[in-house]
Amino acid sequence: MGHLEVGRKRVIIEGVRPEIDGGRYPAKRVVGDRVVVEADIYADGHDAISAVLQYQKAGDVEWQETPMVQQSNDRWRAVFEVSEIGYYRYTVLAWVDRFRSWRESLRKHAEAKQEVTVEILIGADLLVETSQRASASDKRKLLAYSSELRSGSLNRVERAEDLNLHAIMEKYQERGAATRYEKELTIAVDREKARFSTWYEMFPRSCSTNPGKHGTLKDCEKRLEYIANLGFDVLYLPPIHPIGETHRKGRNNSLRAGSKDPGSPWAIGGVDGGHKDIHPELGTLSDFRKLVKKAEDCGVELAMDLALHCSPDHPYVREHPEWFRKRPDGSIQYAENPPKKYQDIYPMDFSGEHWREIWDELRSVVLFWIQQGVRIYRVDNPHTKPFSFWEFLINGVKREHPDVIFLAEAFTRPKVMYGLAKLGFTQSYTYFAWRNTKWELMQYFTEVTRTDIREFFRPNLWPNTPDILTEYLQSGGPSAFMTRLILAATLGANYGIYGPAFELCEDQVLEAGSEEYLNSEKFEIKQWDFNRAINLKELIAKVNRIRGENPALQSDRGLLFHPVDNERLVCYSKQTEDLKNIILVVVNLDPHHTQSGWVELPLELLGPEPNQSFQVHDLLTTARYLWHGRRNYVEVTPQAIPAHIFRIEHRARTERDFHHFM
Amino acid sequence: MGHLEVGRKRVIIEGVRPEIDGGRYPAKRVVGDRVVVEADIYADGHDAISAVLQYQKAGDVEWQETPMVQQSNDRWRAVFEVSEIGYYRYTVLAWVDRFRSWRESLRKHAEAKQEVTVEILIGADLLVETSQRASASDKRKLLAYSSELRSGSLNRVERAEDLNLHAIMEKYQERGAATRYEKELTIAVDREKARFSTWYEMFPRSCSTNPGKHGTLKDCEKRLEYIANLGFDVLYLPPIHPIGETHRKGRNNSLRAGSKDPGSPWAIGGVDGGHKDIHPELGTLSDFRKLVKKAEDCGVELAMDLALHCSPDHPYVREHPEWFRKRPDGSIQYAENPPKKYQDIYPMDFSGEHWREIWDELRSVVLFWIQQGVRIYRVDNPHTKPFSFWEFLINGVKREHPDVIFLAEAFTRPKVMYGLAKLGFTQSYTYFAWRNTKWELMQYFTEVTRTDIREFFRPNLWPNTPDILTEYLQSGGPSAFMTRLILAATLGANYGIYGPAFELCEDQVLEAGSEEYLNSEKFEIKQWDFNRAINLKELIAKVNRIRGENPALQSDRGLLFHPVDNERLVCYSKQTEDLKNIILVVVNLDPHHTQSGWVELPLELLGPEPNQSFQVHDLLTTARYLWHGRRNYVEVTPQAIPAHIFRIEHRARTERDFHHFM
Repeated sequence: MGHLEVGRKRVIIEGVRPEIDGGRYPAKRVVGDRVVVEADIYADGHDAISAVLQYQKAGDVEWQETPMVQQSNDRWRAVFEVSEIGYYRYTVLAWVDRFRSWRESLRKHAEAKQEVTVEILIGADLLVETSQRASASDKRKLLAYSSELRSGSLNRVERAEDLNLHAIMEKYQERGAATRYEKELTIAVDREKARFSTWYEMFPRSCSTNPGKHGTLKDCEKRLEYIANLGFDVLYLPPIHPIGETHRKGRNNSLRAGSKDPGSPWAIGGVDGGHKDIHPELGTLSDFRKLVKKAEDCGVELAMDLALHCSPDHPYVREHPEWFRKRPDGSIQYAENPPKKYQDIYPMDFSGEHWREIWDELRSVVLFWIQQGVRIYRVDNPHTKPFSFWEFLINGVKREHPDVIFLAEAFTRPKVMYGLAKLGFTQSYTYFAWRNTKWELMQYFTEVTRTDIREFFRPNLWPNTPDILTEYLQSGGPSAFMTRLILAATLGANYGIYGPAFELCEDQVLEAGSEEYLNSEKFEIKQWDFNRAINLKELIAKVNRIRGENPALQSDRGLLFHPVDNERLVCYSKQTEDLKNIILVVVNLDPHHTQSGWVELPLELLGPEPNQSFQVHDLLTTARYLWHGRRNYVEVTPQAIPAHIFRIEHRARTERDFHHFM
Repeated sequence: MGHLEVGRKRVIIEGVRPEIDGGRYPAKRVVGDRVVVEADIYADGHDAISAVLQYQKAGDVEWQETPMVQQSNDRWRAVFEVSEIGYYRYTVLAWVDRFRSWRESLRKHAEAKQEVTVEILIGADLLVETSQRASASDKRKLLAYSSELRSGSLNRVERAEDLNLHAIMEKYQERGAATRYEKELTIAVDREKARFSTWYEMFPRSCSTNPGKHGTLKDCEKRLEYIANLGFDVLYLPPIHPIGETHRKGRNNSLRAGSKDPGSPWAIGGVDGGHKDIHPELGTLSDFRKLVKKAEDCGVELAMDLALHCSPDHPYVREHPEWFRKRPDGSIQYAENPPKKYQDIYPMDFSGEHWREIWDELRSVVLFWIQQGVRIYRVDNPHTKPFSFWEFLINGVKREHPDVIFLAEAFTRPKVMYGLAKLGFTQSYTYFAWRNTKWELMQYFTEVTRTDIREFFRPNLWPNTPDILTEYLQSGGPSAFMTRLILAATLGANYGIYGPAFELCEDQVLEAGSEEYLNSEKFEIKQWDFNRAINLKELIAKVNRIRGENPALQSDRGLLFHPVDNERLVCYSKQTEDLKNIILVVVNLDPHHTQSGWVELPLELLGPEPNQSFQVHDLLTTARYLWHGRRNYVEVTPQAIPAHIFRIEHRARTERDFHHFM
């Protein structure tokens, strides 16, 4: 700022929200969202301030503007809509508004019945001064107003309040001494699926209907209808690439594989190729493209696994040994997290001398699959690769393909998980699987949905994964599966299950104290019995239909927990901003016993007439209850369905609503 | 960052504290303070990280370093001491520590009884590599360690833990890929009085002992011993400059002054000069310098008023009419806050065309009084002048005179008050005068002492000022004065009173609903009767002595509120960081009735043996009580002293402390 200006800028702008780490990272939204921007804005003295929010699609030359409106405590606010995928920029501009200051001062003088002659002249002068910046026709009008004010007629104070005059003066405000917030901040705008998605994870090699046969991509096609009928819109496949043979793991993670053991799909790369190739037993690239297309036709989008490491047999190991770290005995450094060793996996040397080659190659992997039609990537263990690599990869890919979605599979410390989300991952796995008690659920989901974390971290909730069969599921029977499904699907606008293990309530664990499935699909081909008597297919389809029909469940912004006087019952609501759709969920966390209690709702959920009765409609059972006031009774029996998913329907009819009531 | 580096920097540094508005403003400390710096630091993978806090006195070439230590949840911490007045800078540097990573990995392998041959070789290689950066003697040692590791002796794992080896490796760590936090942050270090000061405000013209006579600076000298005996160390005088005659205010703020009315000292400037001159009836510049000196000899520092506006008779108005805003009728714009008008005050046009001349001149005013020995300024209404002016003035003055203290007298909206503190005011007036209930006191003082606000806002608590005789004081009698004095002196390390009105319990108000004193000293010369039967001289002296003797009361950092089961009793403690000095205050907020209740203390105040009895020593009455456990009974009678100021004295003696106990 030049010396000549510093003295004239009187407005302070600070505390702008959203702003992540001082603007280092963008806040996230999806297409069609309204972005609420707030700032503390104030100046010395008593003059009136005007402020505008300036925003643009990144790359545009022009800024668009919308006026900010003062709230309480010097907080100002404006809203803009993000209508396209990509990046938007915004900042705040504010200045002392001489015309409004004058009007307010004049009004106060007039109200106090003070002499206003000189005040009026000040205003008239201001109009003349402004007219010099105005168009010819506005200039004429301003000069006319000015003469009228000078003329001394009785209604001069009223004239100063003339809305047409305000409109003209607004147009030509002097902004030479305006303060512009020192940063331009960024919003990353994704497509809607970033906010609302329903995932199904499935091993393609287990899709054959012939016992013992390796499933193919064609077999997967036949499973699509089933998946779509359950209500899922993302089908995520573990890696489909050739699998290494060296140090291949056998059944139940044994160190020696039998000759027929297929190995872990995450041991990527073998004689048949690497990250850009398809395991021959699954099919061809053409099969894959067909699957992508067929899935699309069923309303299901295919998601790939991005596991950026190599089996010892990966072509990279042969062709680019310099991409891997050597040990002093000449061998390549395998993955380890002492004392654990993963001899079947070679990490690439992301921060070594050849980092740039590796990064470029891995970006080309993603671009390759984008060409095959894949727009969603579930990223394996991103926290074991450098953060700067992910910024490079995600930004690089999204520059050309802004609709691509990256889900971070990092189960690690909170700062690291939030760090990955900040630098660009679209969605993130969470600690949901291990949050079982009411306090744990409330604490965690309040943290991720009610603090600044929600600006960049989009939770994707998984009750199980091929690596995680939680103790709660191991021991709670089918009602535990139902509880966890309903929690995932209603707490998280994004959630997923690893199936068919989940819907078939598979709960056999490798060994006590472990979370590994017995006979895990990671190491063998499974034949699932879809006709198991106990299964959740119907419930899942119903819950997913409820999600689809209720916009409140399609976002995490509205999540609110409510008190219940029973520690085994958790109660929360999600509602759209306009309160037209309010979903109230009560879940029994005890898989064994009926639990009951009194739920206490906040006034705003009771509707425009809080003293009137209202209806809650259980979308799971279709039962309807008439509720009244803030406190209402609930009872949940886990052996039936361990939860209520109520839609609150205001204005339950009363006798006055009927014709015969006069 | 160059392309060649980005791939090698693996550490993320964020969430650095203290950091005010992204580093835009400095955090504040005083000489001798320990600055605790914290940051979130993490990297991908499992490698060990090393981090250092770098700091320097601003202007130094070299950075000093101190290692940061990991706390929980990826939070790291280090402390440095600021030993000189001025500015310090600090930042954080962190890197993946290959040697520590190797040692930890080796240890884990060894603990798991795994083969470590290759691990040992990796370490030996690292030592050789490091030796190339080492001094000749260290190089020899490293090569010796390396050979020893290679030699295959049995205790190689133990050798890797050798502390001498660590010390050498520490010295030559490779920091090429270190991440340096993107900002260098600033600490503004003031002298101790910024944190701990005890103010007395007094009108010098009321200091004569001859009834009706205008007091002089010489008369003030005679009052110094009294002030020092009460325990004050800052004497703040309202403006001592010539007073204007045009629109001079008469007694009780009447619009017409009588011929003998002296006018408000804040109507600065007249025939005898302006801001660099002394009102002739008070004395000469030489008298002033003597007063400064005499005060200093009594341990009292003189503070001046800085009221940067002019009476219509100020020389600036004649000499620089362009420094003031004209109205269309040719008159100069007087101060107003419609509908209120202050025709005796002309604001200067701080943001007008001639802003730079005005700013320079006003800075010269401060520099002039600094030359006369004044190092403390109480700034009148800073919120009605531009914020950028204060940055210019305070930074400009402190560059040459870093020991100068500015107290902001802004009673305005919270964001504005905090804004002024951020941009450089050393201390700030507060809302204390209007915080009377327990909830109000707890809420406000928690906000200013337990949130980030404490990093830049130093409260200075005034129970009264010449403008503020609160309703509580008007109606509560002497015990209300005692209550407010004790609250101010113990809640605030910085506090002040406007005397002798305060210690003489002056409670006559101009009119009901007003906070103006009847016959306010602002508009007339007063003769105070120091022998009023009801006065607080003894109590004030005692309270100020307690402040001087107890370091816990000399800082606001330690303030903690504690529950009492009586809404009229407020209880809080202040303690030094080492807990060697713990002051516990219980104040009865009801000036009329005895109140009692049970105080609940946190464990940490109960001493090393929470189950042992401890003594609380009432420093006001000298009474001692034996307390036990967390809950203890208190009773406060306002007619005596409406508060306890306890010092907690642990390890009350038991029979085991006496020789005859065997």
